[in-house]
Amino acid sequence: MSLLSNIRSPEDVRALPASRLGDLAKEMRERIIDVVGKGGGHLTSNLGVVELTIALHRVFDFAHDRLLFDVGHQCYPHKLLTGRADRFDTIRKAGGLSGFPSIDESAYDLFNVGHAGTAIATGVGLARADMLLKENRRIVAVVGDASIVNGVAFEGLNQAGTLRRQFLVILNDNEWGISPTQGALAEYLAKFRASNFYEDVKAKAKQILPKLPLLGQPAFDMLLHLKEGIKATLSPGQIFDHLNFQYIGPIDGHDTEHLIETLNLVKDAHHPVLLHVHTVKGKGCDWATAEPGRFHSPKPFTVCGGKATIQSGGGRSWTRAFVENLIEVAEKDRRVFAMTAGMPDGTGLNLFADRFPDRYLDVGIAESCTVDMAAGMAKAGLRPVCAIYSTFLQRAFDQVFQEVVLQGHPVMFCLDRGGLVGGDGAVHHGFLDIAYLRGFPGMTLMAPMDEVELRQAIEFGLTLDGACAIRYPRDNVPAPMPDCPPFERGRARVLREGGDVVLLGYGVTCQAALAAAQKLAAEGVEARVVNARFARPIDRRMVREAFESGAPVLTIEDHSISGGFGSAVLEAAQEMGLVIRRFSRLGMPTDRFIAHASRAAQLAEVGIDAEGIARAARASLTGEATDGACAVAVVETVTPASARRDGALPSPAERVRA
Amino acid sequence: MSLLSNIRSPEDVRALPASRLGDLAKEMRERIIDVVGKGGGHLTSNLGVVELTIALHRVFDFAHDRLLFDVGHQCYPHKLLTGRADRFDTIRKAGGLSGFPSIDESAYDLFNVGHAGTAIATGVGLARADMLLKENRRIVAVVGDASIVNGVAFEGLNQAGTLRRQFLVILNDNEWGISPTQGALAEYLAKFRASNFYEDVKAKAKQILPKLPLLGQPAFDMLLHLKEGIKATLSPGQIFDHLNFQYIGPIDGHDTEHLIETLNLVKDAHHPVLLHVHTVKGKGCDWATAEPGRFHSPKPFTVCGGKATIQSGGGRSWTRAFVENLIEVAEKDRRVFAMTAGMPDGTGLNLFADRFPDRYLDVGIAESCTVDMAAGMAKAGLRPVCAIYSTFLQRAFDQVFQEVVLQGHPVMFCLDRGGLVGGDGAVHHGFLDIAYLRGFPGMTLMAPMDEVELRQAIEFGLTLDGACAIRYPRDNVPAPMPDCPPFERGRARVLREGGDVVLLGYGVTCQAALAAAQKLAAEGVEARVVNARFARPIDRRMVREAFESGAPVLTIEDHSISGGFGSAVLEAAQEMGLVIRRFSRLGMPTDRFIAHASRAAQLAEVGIDAEGIARAARASLTGEATDGACAVAVVETVTPASARRDGALPSPAERVRA
Repeated sequence: MSLLSNIRSPEDVRALPASRLGDLAKEMRERIIDVVGKGGGHLTSNLGVVELTIALHRVFDFAHDRLLFDVGHQCYPHKLLTGRADRFDTIRKAGGLSGFPSIDESAYDLFNVGHAGTAIATGVGLARADMLLKENRRIVAVVGDASIVNGVAFEGLNQAGTLRRQFLVILNDNEWGISPTQGALAEYLAKFRASNFYEDVKAKAKQILPKLPLLGQPAFDMLLHLKEGIKATLSPGQIFDHLNFQYIGPIDGHDTEHLIETLNLVKDAHHPVLLHVHTVKGKGCDWATAEPGRFHSPKPFTVCGGKATIQSGGGRSWTRAFVENLIEVAEKDRRVFAMTAGMPDGTGLNLFADRFPDRYLDVGIAESCTVDMAAGMAKAGLRPVCAIYSTFLQRAFDQVFQEVVLQGHPVMFCLDRGGLVGGDGAVHHGFLDIAYLRGFPGMTLMAPMDEVELRQAIEFGLTLDGACAIRYPRDNVPAPMPDCPPFERGRARVLREGGDVVLLGYGVTCQAALAAAQKLAAEGVEARVVNARFARPIDRRMVREAFESGAPVLTIEDHSISGGFGSAVLEAAQEMGLVIRRFSRLGMPTDRFIAHASRAAQLAEVGIDAEGIARAARASLTGEATDGACAVAVVETVTPASARRDGALPSPAERVRA
Repeated sequence: MSLLSNIRSPEDVRALPASRLGDLAKEMRERIIDVVGKGGGHLTSNLGVVELTIALHRVFDFAHDRLLFDVGHQCYPHKLLTGRADRFDTIRKAGGLSGFPSIDESAYDLFNVGHAGTAIATGVGLARADMLLKENRRIVAVVGDASIVNGVAFEGLNQAGTLRRQFLVILNDNEWGISPTQGALAEYLAKFRASNFYEDVKAKAKQILPKLPLLGQPAFDMLLHLKEGIKATLSPGQIFDHLNFQYIGPIDGHDTEHLIETLNLVKDAHHPVLLHVHTVKGKGCDWATAEPGRFHSPKPFTVCGGKATIQSGGGRSWTRAFVENLIEVAEKDRRVFAMTAGMPDGTGLNLFADRFPDRYLDVGIAESCTVDMAAGMAKAGLRPVCAIYSTFLQRAFDQVFQEVVLQGHPVMFCLDRGGLVGGDGAVHHGFLDIAYLRGFPGMTLMAPMDEVELRQAIEFGLTLDGACAIRYPRDNVPAPMPDCPPFERGRARVLREGGDVVLLGYGVTCQAALAAAQKLAAEGVEARVVNARFARPIDRRMVREAFESGAPVLTIEDHSISGGFGSAVLEAAQEMGLVIRRFSRLGMPTDRFIAHASRAAQLAEVGIDAEGIARAARASLTGEATDGACAVAVVETVTPASARRDGALPSPAERVRA
């Protein structure tokens, strides 16, 4: 790996002879496959943009110009070329590099991103500010064909089209986001992919147009239109042209020389340009290109004889448990219709699609539209089940409000990745869903603790008149507790009796609470352990019994302690006039974001693993902690930047890359 | 009004002789102007769709087919034709008709709407469900040119383009949403507006094309392309064609006969159709068409001699106070950049735009993009101020998370319409902003109680390193309290001393709390009144003093009691280990939505006017209420629809219009 080890900044990329770029690309691919194979991570999207990333750093100087990745899971080659190759093997690990662009890591990363569709809009903001500040920095936004169908990406294009300055959008078209791209725009792009259509036609037109006879002024006018017409008809870019972008493409995203040539051509255009680049997801790796979805974000794998074997996870995931139970429920309930927003593999719904192709839809990365379509389906009498990660449902918050809750529609939200997510880190934690869904009238919030409860929650949810959400984590589903009582709305389940301390869990945190109870029992402390099952409505009997027991009460949630399950318990206790003392809310802190690490390490960090819960329980018993203190400090220390009070504009040095 | 009084359902519209439709339109306009003149409401958007609404009800039978209004503030003519003409004068009043489509009012209203951009996506959901259920109902979505640029509308178009069935989108193009439409798409549509371009060109093409000589096979191929090219170049619809819509238009939206003819032509197309209709906002009313923004949603007005005079509000609005103070601050602080998402009048920023045209942007109805652009501007060193209604910021929840808070960007959100909004009702209350913003690390939440505090909050917010939000209601700003201490982060302001009861207000609720304190003082009860000023971070000293005083403590917020300001106080008290007793949280209930009425009536209904607060204080003192009970019941009564447990598909009669 001689070339890559000498790349300490993009300047080194620019200093390489052009003849070595192919070798550099090869080394980068090898490094990415090696590191992702060992530790897991995003693979195929990164293999697809190796040449594009090299070309970008050859043509632009992003120490000054601005590079924005949409989604950001395709940033590995960029990290390799911007001074982070030596630490690349730490990616997604505790204390290591982030799997997404990270402003804390490098001045070459402008935004922490992980959710799709935002690069164009943030780029327009940068552009407008630069115009006002008389800055002259080029802006490049790299957007995938799966992201460009997201609403905010379109809103951004619509705004970018009003700019009268340089603004380059690179449409990285690989026909796939995480799954095949959905919708009419995808069909439209597909017509033109991997063709030399534009070049061929231009040549043909040159040959024929001069031969057309002159037919007087009207014909001359027509001809002008026809020329325009040729361009419009034959170029895939007209949809972007209409938004005031100059469209160029499609070009081969793996021909570094041609990429560099084209980027040089357009880099100083004084208007928005959309460069359509065709790349292959997993390029350079046959087993990855053959299954780009499976190798989008695989667990660690080994490569042998041109075949990659992904490590079996050793255990059954919540995702798998969800989809298999949903399929069984759907066999009996013909109203069930399953929907995903571009994540059929991640949510498990690919299996549902195999079984019920007519009762399944992947709407693409368009969460708002997914929820609105679900509302329409519910209106028509179906029972839509939207499987969306907790963090991505944030994108549809207003649709949950207006189209679902305000109408009383029975839409079921199945929130995978509820809680700490491990290696994906701060951009992906499901840390607020309880807080942001809890205020909606008619909403039911549930969290099962094992697969038996998950099945019950799904079946129970389908009996409700209104909307509900079921959350579960990115983890393996634990062995079920025996003797599971049926779900009743707002009714908790007692898992263990004990008079010394009360542990109120919510879904998955019950497993850790039970393990903590074991530890405590060994010390002679008997804990009552309860799965609240419902964060809305809260079981008031559960709350009353807990607070009237006189023992310390702890709530444990895989969620922020601000406005979450513990807050719901507290509100209920207060509303019932109970005496609130020796009460602690355990969960994610509200003063900072939790960085990437293993999920187990993250659970330990915030104190909701067995040891953390036991420690908090002991503290509440011995009075080591103040009564009612949280395991996590919530005092904040943000200080005013009083230096800015003068209202002066920032100096160039202070701007952007500070 | 002889015609209109005989219209009891759309059947009566269809029974009218065509010759009377002009008279019907005239009567409808007169009725709308009369009722809105007396009570306020949406005017110009409704005057613009009179003929279109008549034509829709002539051609379709929406007892069976499905009509979806986007935004919904253009539903008045629809209400007049669907059995509600006799109650039309009650619109927006307590117990009267809603100012938006309302499922409780009429089976002809399919969704309660008020937020823009959702009709296409919900329509696609209905269409997909109908396909599965073997229903055959036509779907019509009426979308304005200002709404179609919203992200979810584009996501919906992208999905609709995959349908192989009837689906009609009517683009009601009036060049205005609430303000002139923004963005590249608006420029694009403007090129074709009000022209006979399409018709002219088709005629010209017919005349010329046959005269072109035959040039062999390549030329023949070219000609095929050229014909397509003519269509593509010369029709404004190609941008929609590419999304698999058949584009038709633009046609005159005030020519009822032509509208009916065209609708009949396209009503049974087996594919998506976009019908581009050009209407005039305020049509039929010269003073309204002259100032469509001012008469979009005016207060009551009188018409005399062809001129309308809007009642002066009698008082200074928070909106006006906000913008005038922002302008003064911006005079000194050159970093301030003001942004609105399609509401320059509603947010007051039209005045800012007059003063600082280069430091202002209306992004159109695209809240997600607005927040992302603000993030980009903050990154570049500016201090963006996003003035967005509390309810509409829900549209950008995820952008506030990822692009603003996760990066630590100092974006200021000025949330007008925080709290109960009066006549606009449930679709527009700002009832959750504290709850949904409170969980974000680094966020500062403020609520000023008067104009002096508003100014201070703005100035203080501009000194912060991170994001902040300032909320204020749709109301007049009260006379300022003297001796206003400066804003310090997380520091409350004591407004009145008293030892019998503690009233913790948040912003505007302090005025009612002070008035309640006056009432109580007359009864010999002395209340301490505090403006918390900050919901995040909460002033812990304020909380400690309140709970340690031994007196009952009440929090009062113009917001849901679920997860809001009162919950933040409660969490802080619990975290500090304080004894929590005789504590009440006053605010909006969490088990239902508050209907339209005057804001004063709504405040009284939820018990946060002076009388309600005094009543709650008395109850907490006399023990009439359970300790800690809320003024508002929160026990819920949603019951499972057990009849649906069998999983049977709904019968047609049960569907949709039940």
